Amino acid sequence: MTGGFTLPGESGYEKLTLELAEKWGADCIRDSDGTSLSDEILETGIPIYSTICLVRSINGWAKQHPECLQRNFLMSEMKMAQGDTLLIDPMEGYFTGQFTILPGDPVSLWQVFDRTDGTEHHDWKWDGKTVTVKNCVPYHFYTVNFLAARIWEEISMYNHITNDWGDREHLMAVEPRYPETRKALLDFLNEWLKEHKHTSVVRFTSMFYNFTWIWGSSARRRDVFSDWGSYDFTVNPVSLAEFEKEYGYSMCSEDFIRAGKHNPTHTPPTVRMRDWMEFTGRFVRDFGKQCVDLVHAYGKKAYVFYDDSWIGIEPWSGHFGDFGFDGLIKCVFNAFEARLCAGVKDVNVHELRLHPYLFPTGLGGEPTFLPGGHPEKDARRFWSRIRRALMRVKIDRIGLGGYLHLTQGFDAFVDEIASITDEFRLLKTLHEGGEPYSTGIRVGILQSWGSLRTWNCAGHMHEHPELALNHIHESLAGLPVEVRSLGLKEVKENGVPKDVDVVINAGREGDAWSGGDIWKDAELKAHMYEFVARGGGLIGVQEPGKVRGGMRALALADILGVDMEDGSTICAGKYSFETEKGHFISRDTQKAPAFHNAAKGVYALDENTKVLFSDGEDIIASARAFFKGRGVYLNGYTYSFENTRLLYRAILWAAGKEELEDCYMTNDPACECAFFPSAGKLIVINSSEEDKSVRVSMPGGEKNVSVPAGGIKVV
Amino acid sequence: MTGGFTLPGESGYEKLTLELAEKWGADCIRDSDGTSLSDEILETGIPIYSTICLVRSINGWAKQHPECLQRNFLMSEMKMAQGDTLLIDPMEGYFTGQFTILPGDPVSLWQVFDRTDGTEHHDWKWDGKTVTVKNCVPYHFYTVNFLAARIWEEISMYNHITNDWGDREHLMAVEPRYPETRKALLDFLNEWLKEHKHTSVVRFTSMFYNFTWIWGSSARRRDVFSDWGSYDFTVNPVSLAEFEKEYGYSMCSEDFIRAGKHNPTHTPPTVRMRDWMEFTGRFVRDFGKQCVDLVHAYGKKAYVFYDDSWIGIEPWSGHFGDFGFDGLIKCVFNAFEARLCAGVKDVNVHELRLHPYLFPTGLGGEPTFLPGGHPEKDARRFWSRIRRALMRVKIDRIGLGGYLHLTQGFDAFVDEIASITDEFRLLKTLHEGGEPYSTGIRVGILQSWGSLRTWNCAGHMHEHPELALNHIHESLAGLPVEVRSLGLKEVKENGVPKDVDVVINAGREGDAWSGGDIWKDAELKAHMYEFVARGGGLIGVQEPGKVRGGMRALALADILGVDMEDGSTICAGKYSFETEKGHFISRDTQKAPAFHNAAKGVYALDENTKVLFSDGEDIIASARAFFKGRGVYLNGYTYSFENTRLLYRAILWAAGKEELEDCYMTNDPACECAFFPSAGKLIVINSSEEDKSVRVSMPGGEKNVSVPAGGIKVV
Repeated sequence: MTGGFTLPGESGYEKLTLELAEKWGADCIRDSDGTSLSDEILETGIPIYSTICLVRSINGWAKQHPECLQRNFLMSEMKMAQGDTLLIDPMEGYFTGQFTILPGDPVSLWQVFDRTDGTEHHDWKWDGKTVTVKNCVPYHFYTVNFLAARIWEEISMYNHITNDWGDREHLMAVEPRYPETRKALLDFLNEWLKEHKHTSVVRFTSMFYNFTWIWGSSARRRDVFSDWGSYDFTVNPVSLAEFEKEYGYSMCSEDFIRAGKHNPTHTPPTVRMRDWMEFTGRFVRDFGKQCVDLVHAYGKKAYVFYDDSWIGIEPWSGHFGDFGFDGLIKCVFNAFEARLCAGVKDVNVHELRLHPYLFPTGLGGEPTFLPGGHPEKDARRFWSRIRRALMRVKIDRIGLGGYLHLTQGFDAFVDEIASITDEFRLLKTLHEGGEPYSTGIRVGILQSWGSLRTWNCAGHMHEHPELALNHIHESLAGLPVEVRSLGLKEVKENGVPKDVDVVINAGREGDAWSGGDIWKDAELKAHMYEFVARGGGLIGVQEPGKVRGGMRALALADILGVDMEDGSTICAGKYSFETEKGHFISRDTQKAPAFHNAAKGVYALDENTKVLFSDGEDIIASARAFFKGRGVYLNGYTYSFENTRLLYRAILWAAGKEELEDCYMTNDPACECAFFPSAGKLIVINSSEEDKSVRVSMPGGEKNVSVPAGGIKVV
Repeated sequence: MTGGFTLPGESGYEKLTLELAEKWGADCIRDSDGTSLSDEILETGIPIYSTICLVRSINGWAKQHPECLQRNFLMSEMKMAQGDTLLIDPMEGYFTGQFTILPGDPVSLWQVFDRTDGTEHHDWKWDGKTVTVKNCVPYHFYTVNFLAARIWEEISMYNHITNDWGDREHLMAVEPRYPETRKALLDFLNEWLKEHKHTSVVRFTSMFYNFTWIWGSSARRRDVFSDWGSYDFTVNPVSLAEFEKEYGYSMCSEDFIRAGKHNPTHTPPTVRMRDWMEFTGRFVRDFGKQCVDLVHAYGKKAYVFYDDSWIGIEPWSGHFGDFGFDGLIKCVFNAFEARLCAGVKDVNVHELRLHPYLFPTGLGGEPTFLPGGHPEKDARRFWSRIRRALMRVKIDRIGLGGYLHLTQGFDAFVDEIASITDEFRLLKTLHEGGEPYSTGIRVGILQSWGSLRTWNCAGHMHEHPELALNHIHESLAGLPVEVRSLGLKEVKENGVPKDVDVVINAGREGDAWSGGDIWKDAELKAHMYEFVARGGGLIGVQEPGKVRGGMRALALADILGVDMEDGSTICAGKYSFETEKGHFISRDTQKAPAFHNAAKGVYALDENTKVLFSDGEDIIASARAFFKGRGVYLNGYTYSFENTRLLYRAILWAAGKEELEDCYMTNDPACECAFFPSAGKLIVINSSEEDKSVRVSMPGGEKNVSVPAGGIKVV
């Protein structure tokens, strides 16, 4: 079998390119960042992918139109007044390579705050260099919110500085809210499309706005703020004015600055910020569609890369179809990212960019395609991680990125990719024949964002490995359950949807994943009580529904039967407990898990809480009946084979479906399986680095299967 | 030398009593709980202490007047409504040996709450057995606040159950708010005084109200709530009515229940509860004075025991003198408790009850005066702990409790007590000659209670060993600095008093020791900024000023230069840091301390924060200049010799008094010293269990001193 594979071509290595295209069954050749393909490759007749990042592509024009650069609000450092006047240099602490203040920008958008009493301070002036704050309250701290222009596009900046590119040009991101920018971009795209006559697929990287990435001046704190899902870089005088016209109210600098905390995806969003995101999304789709239409006019397809400048694209917004994209490409490290890509509707092609990239070194600087590197092992390890998801859902294409010549001398890698592409095509074919077996259990992840952040806590696992929900997503990605996300606001208004069996809430006090202050709401709590009391399941992880000022530290405590000692109840006696052995949930777990993000101080509310694991003091896992339903508590969560099994059993138990433990479950958590009824085939994968011989429970009985390390077996 | 020592006498062991009185230099003989002295002892002419606990002394009368028993509010368990009616048995879960509902008590004082939406629910009725809640919101939880009478006095109950006293009578505590109770108590006291003609000192144990101690029905949770400083047991129909008359507003059950959290001392007090405490204090002093006057009328002295039924006595309230007590006795395990006793004004005699008690076993059930026990070691260990405080302040008397005959066969113990009493008398004599050297540095402990809770976080160290401030108090108790407590409310209103050099705030988010919501107040923060900016010192421990919703997680972050990651700033970059070697503060500390109550996620605000210790990720200790003053942060605190030295150096540095390190400091933290200028004597104590040879830095130079394990040396 061939097809479904995108090969990075390389000029000067035409023979190698064609050889590997043959060996790996490639049906597409792409250019990589910083490479362009030679005519010899372009003229093979193999379809060509070409990448383009519009907003940083017209640097000459950008230099002539600094007023059309992208902007964002920044907050100055905090300065304390000792007398009644205070001088503040707004830019102090920021990287001047990235930011500047444009003299022509309206200072009326700036705000000064007394951060000690939290009020806006109106008596100040800006002389082009310094803000003088007048009539200060002595011993109060003040800050200036100001509008900065960005003179270096972040991905260009990162690559330039990381790779020490010396005096290579600093690319700048232009602001498409200006009509003249849009015209310049469309003109450029039009020319580009004319020139790239061999290109079949235009891959946008991505649309117009990068995720927020603010650099500081200190070598000891390069990142002042970075978040994969924040919209700070979409603000500018034009968008602010248009927003006000459209929404009837205006956004101010403090809506974006929020006392220096900005609006990270990990924090429950404000209503205003949700409005802003919708507003921005409409603009990005509108202008994005013009770009896609132009690509289509040239008879080419338009794909979009789901990273970098992805802000406003929001493939899970329900409006992604408006763009008219033909394909969506996601760079993946983990299984949940494969689900994040696969689940996007209104696009034909879902493609994964696999790791390792064909670069000399890996993410952490370790050798990959260098002496001492074992890229074949890396490839198998990444693939083993992602394959779990591909057992459950169909992905249409996979591909690599980087410099093809680096594979020379790494024959084991070349062979490994051949195996991986074969495995991929096998799985894809099975899915095309019909859906695999599923327990049918419908899991709803309850958080602040709802469906917009399905399979997604903003970014890759390695960016926020501390988040329990990232790890929960990773486990779920390979389990035979149906997963969706539920917004807390929607559940507060309408209750848990009828087609959900088990709700998971996994997060830390005040964050978007636990939920924060909305848990003070009685309707929300009552809906959750009702859902479980009538037979639903609830799995609470780490600090589910934790909020200050209530009767309980955890809003969901009465369902789960556990609460947390937050220091306000140290005089209250706690029930002593014994750990319950052989519970359905814990049966496959050899020893008490020690989650890396475990909440401390968890205790049982009464004797009806069954403690499954404890560290002697705190509860690690517990289970409890709540009227007709069930609650399970885990004090944290770390993805691992064993913990995935624990979570799966917790889901089965919470759903009251214990009998399904005999349906396509192996006796070794490192090996998972999927049954494809229409093909009559059972797939067993071994995600570990050891050969395994496992027993698979099936409705008809059991089957013994041997699977090599990292391998797959079709039965 | 003899004197200053109170010996527990024992009938049947008259010879032993007199022998040990001689050996230990006793000038007083006391009866112990459950013992009475024989005529042979009574008639020696040695002054006699006799103990009395009035409120549980008239049990026959109490049985005939159940309406005069003490009361308190309790909250029922939480029950969820599924329909519109809900039945609640208020007493479910409580120990029926302790509580009952008196049929004649006014049900109008009860309250039902919807705990899901936090509102009071008025539609309910009580039929003498069950509360029927009507018109419930389905899937909301409800509770009943109800008034219970106590039919077993807590100390009687605890001793009875712990010692398995079988059918011995259950003593009940009567409520002196009823005039008939007061009359019965005074009559009893009058009779008792007549009968105890040999008694010189009447020791009250203590006045009328025990600290709050609520027992549950489950063997797995005996203590539902216990707090050494809570006033729950002072509420009853009479006190509620009198309070309303006096204050013009009424207290309701929920003021005491607070959604089941009650009012632990560890939580910032409400204004209403402070009113209630003052109101109760006035009553206790008023009736207490009548009792004391009666004692004086018989020519006897009146001492009070600062434990058990101490509620309303409040020796640090500033009104303690109103009672007219002649002495105050405190049972001590720790040095801070010795300071808690020694610092009380308006009383002549400050006496400590030392450990071990003359009981067969110790607190944890380990043998004391039993084979395998080493009471002489225990005695030396307890004494070594407490002696540090006695170097700094004068205590007038010490004493023991328990059964004297148990000392037979423990000659080493008898000798050890002889040494201890000699050491005590030496220290006392030195203090009488003039005060010891002090750095003069004035430390203010900033917390919610102010001076009322000086040297005191409610109870003994072993009850709440997790509290950093308990450990800070313990270290301070032996340091040559002046210590007072500052109330957050007073500092908010008036700033830090001018005669304070270093402020310490040590606690956990929301607790009374850190301070809770008051830290949202701009005035308070500005006063702290001003105090340090003008040259003051601040030491923040664990979660100083931590409060949600502000610009910083720690309200004092900008002074200390550190803040805590509470989950809301995970997208903000943190400054990398290197640990500073050889800083003045950390110079005597061999390795990074690991505090048992360490806060996690502490990071530096910028490069000006000097990190003294870290665990690789979190900051453990840091120091920083703030304008003319200085801030020191410790992420927790555990009492130890080394940590005491660290704290002392932090105080010197924060006060800008580094030069004082040469004044009476040893080169070994296990050994501390005090210089008494008028006597020209230097005392060096060794609190460790090893012999030590140390160098003492003094203004004139250095001196080498050898001190045996646990010993004391006068130079």
